[in-house]
Amino acid sequence: MPVVTVTRRLHFNAAHRVHNPALSDEENEHLFGKCNNPNWHGHNYILDVSVRGPVDDRTGYVLDLAALKRIAEERAVDRIDHKNFNLDVPFMRGVIPTSENIVVGIWRELEPAIRPGKLVKLVLWETPNNYVEYTGE
Amino acid sequence: MPVVTVTRRLHFNAAHRVHNPALSDEENEHLFGKCNNPNWHGHNYILDVSVRGPVDDRTGYVLDLAALKRIAEERAVDRIDHKNFNLDVPFMRGVIPTSENIVVGIWRELEPAIRPGKLVKLVLWETPNNYVEYTGE
Amino acid sequence: MPVVTVTRRLHFNAAHRVHNPALSDEENEHLFGKCNNPNWHGHNYILDVSVRGPVDDRTGYVLDLAALKRIAEERAVDRIDHKNFNLDVPFMRGVIPTSENIVVGIWRELEPAIRPGKLVKLVLWETPNNYVEYTGE
Amino acid sequence: MPVVTVTRRLHFNAAHRVHNPALSDEENEHLFGKCNNPNWHGHNYILDVSVRGPVDDRTGYVLDLAALKRIAEERAVDRIDHKNFNLDVPFMRGVIPTSENIVVGIWRELEPAIRPGKLVKLVLWETPNNYVEYTGE
Amino acid sequence: MPVVTVTRRLHFNAAHRVHNPALSDEENEHLFGKCNNPNWHGHNYILDVSVRGPVDDRTGYVLDLAALKRIAEERAVDRIDHKNFNLDVPFMRGVIPTSENIVVGIWRELEPAIRPGKLVKLVLWETPNNYVEYTGE
Amino acid sequence: MPVVTVTRRLHFNAAHRVHNPALSDEENEHLFGKCNNPNWHGHNYILDVSVRGPVDDRTGYVLDLAALKRIAEERAVDRIDHKNFNLDVPFMRGVIPTSENIVVGIWRELEPAIRPGKLVKLVLWETPNNYVEYTGE
Repeated sequence: MPVVTVTRRLHFNAAHRVHNPALSDEENEHLFGKCNNPNWHGHNYILDVSVRGPVDDRTGYVLDLAALKRIAEERAVDRIDHKNFNLDVPFMRGVIPTSENIVVGIWRELEPAIRPGKLVKLVLWETPNNYVEYTGE
Repeated sequence: MPVVTVTRRLHFNAAHRVHNPALSDEENEHLFGKCNNPNWHGHNYILDVSVRGPVDDRTGYVLDLAALKRIAEERAVDRIDHKNFNLDVPFMRGVIPTSENIVVGIWRELEPAIRPGKLVKLVLWETPNNYVEYTGE
Repeated sequence: MPVVTVTRRLHFNAAHRVHNPALSDEENEHLFGKCNNPNWHGHNYILDVSVRGPVDDRTGYVLDLAALKRIAEERAVDRIDHKNFNLDVPFMRGVIPTSENIVVGIWRELEPAIRPGKLVKLVLWETPNNYVEYTGE
Repeated sequence: MPVVTVTRRLHFNAAHRVHNPALSDEENEHLFGKCNNPNWHGHNYILDVSVRGPVDDRTGYVLDLAALKRIAEERAVDRIDHKNFNLDVPFMRGVIPTSENIVVGIWRELEPAIRPGKLVKLVLWETPNNYVEYTGE
Repeated sequence: MPVVTVTRRLHFNAAHRVHNPALSDEENEHLFGKCNNPNWHGHNYILDVSVRGPVDDRTGYVLDLAALKRIAEERAVDRIDHKNFNLDVPFMRGVIPTSENIVVGIWRELEPAIRPGKLVKLVLWETPNNYVEYTGE
Repeated sequence: MPVVTVTRRLHFNAAHRVHNPALSDEENEHLFGKCNNPNWHGHNYILDVSVRGPVDDRTGYVLDLAALKRIAEERAVDRIDHKNFNLDVPFMRGVIPTSENIVVGIWRELEPAIRPGKLVKLVLWETPNNYVEYTGE
């Protein structure tokens, strides 16, 4: 039975402020520049969810991508789409909402719920010129 | 002398809330749905600035696109990039920051400053699935 | 009141065969080549629906793009998505399902239903390298 | 001698029906939904063929991408472009034409023919929102 | 008979130097900056060729896009692909190879050869952030 | 502390000629075809620089992408943008400027300068249909 990785791409948009409340305003401004704007800014994020597993003979699927989409929406996308990462998202409480921390937060919400197959990678695009990848390490 | 339209694409990202302060919360929620989120959301906007004019024999240009970029940045993009359209942008005061109103606001800032050639179109993409065009009417 | 054109992009995929039943097999093969494959082939189509009108003071919208999406889905996209243009689509009966005829067929379904504003353009991409535009003429 | 992975992207479009003939119509409809449409539907597929090997001093290439393109066309793309995966493609006989099974089928056709270097990955995009990867396992 | 605009997208890459030989080196450097590099630089150009006309009842086409592609390749793309606009292209002799002059040059080569239908627009992308349009004026 | 890979995408354009001076003109023409054009040709290159490391608690970053961009520009992009790979680029002297050799050359310039985190991958797109990857082996 061949083992294949399948990916579903999802889209959402959100506001955030890159800010560490433990630091002074000067340090925040120095570290984060315009991403520290007190009145927020935002992005159209792209999220690629990749699951790896054997191809099921009966369906020809690793897993049903429509089911994967539903899981990703219920556990992550619907809770962050058109939201503010600093104020509205319980699973981001206490961490700075950089792409790095967002992708780790989404992984923790999704990983236990995905089967058959195993979540092997998340890619999160913040702008057309930068993205992050997380594989659970 | 042939007449050509040249376009410079620019990128920025910003937060906004689609909200009409003259209406009740219920009306706002009914009209704007998740775009009315009180804690904002945001987008990676794409702006195409199109200028039309005769091709200059000496340069082969309608106008220097590096100069056009500078004008667009000074008059518009630097004032809205990593900002909040409801709170941070003087030229958007008193209007609901929909794409329609943003593109008209940018036109009014840019139009008087562009020459040689004439600003003939602005296109503003808010998400990969929707955009607006304005030609000054 | 400024007049703006707003566009909603929609996606669907479908099968078709470019074939004129009034012609012989040889003529069809000669005219349409591999697009005449008797067992069909298919595409991921992209449809851009553009509506032009004054910006409403109360909403900042020409029209609500969520409402435009619903109209476009009910009247066109849901009837052609994952379908066969030659066999499954009532509004394409009796015409060869080229992109030209598809875009005109979609226009006729959408145009009477769109308001406020006026449908001014449809763009239909068949592949990443070809698209057609129709403005109602 | 550095070892580099080189990729050639190819495009094709095809029709298919996601259907398991060993199951009832109800089970097929339940498992595959609109992808089970009896009259087919189709896609513009994108195929990325990745080959890894040392860089040849004489050419600066891992392998000539024009030669790789010819192999990929002769062994795979020309046999599936503008075709029906269920009816027209010998190497897909007896398997459900999901992206998972298509990518494995293409691998088996290409892998023995590619040299110098070694085929290390195929990526197949079915729509702009989903793709599969196969590395030969 | 509806009137539709159909577009074929083509790709080529080429080298050029934006340079006016009638001016001094200082003036060229001042006007054109890094685009004046004496040893050339280059681009992956994208060319969209748009033809407008009535839809032919017999074919469902305005014109056969495969034929349009052949005309565009013979008259323009094959003569500029992997070439130097300043040195290798007869129809660009005596003009500065800016996008503006290139698009006008291509128009003059293509316009007399395209029928049925009428060439109505060329769009030439030089980079992902700038493009020019010409409609024959 | 989770370990994440972050990527910054950069753009540049350049001219080159794929040519091995140790070989005859006939051999060069046979090996490299139109890419051997004596008067050069060029591309809009896309470069993805990927760095892997633990997420810093204080910043939420693996490393500051603005700093990564500066390093990539100073050490590579500014030295190749609007340049000729055969004539203008010291770190490419003595090698054929294929994408394979370019990506290895860029790696050698960047790798020692990047920290915190470790450079783990470079991807270089030469055209929309081919790219190369290097991981330092």
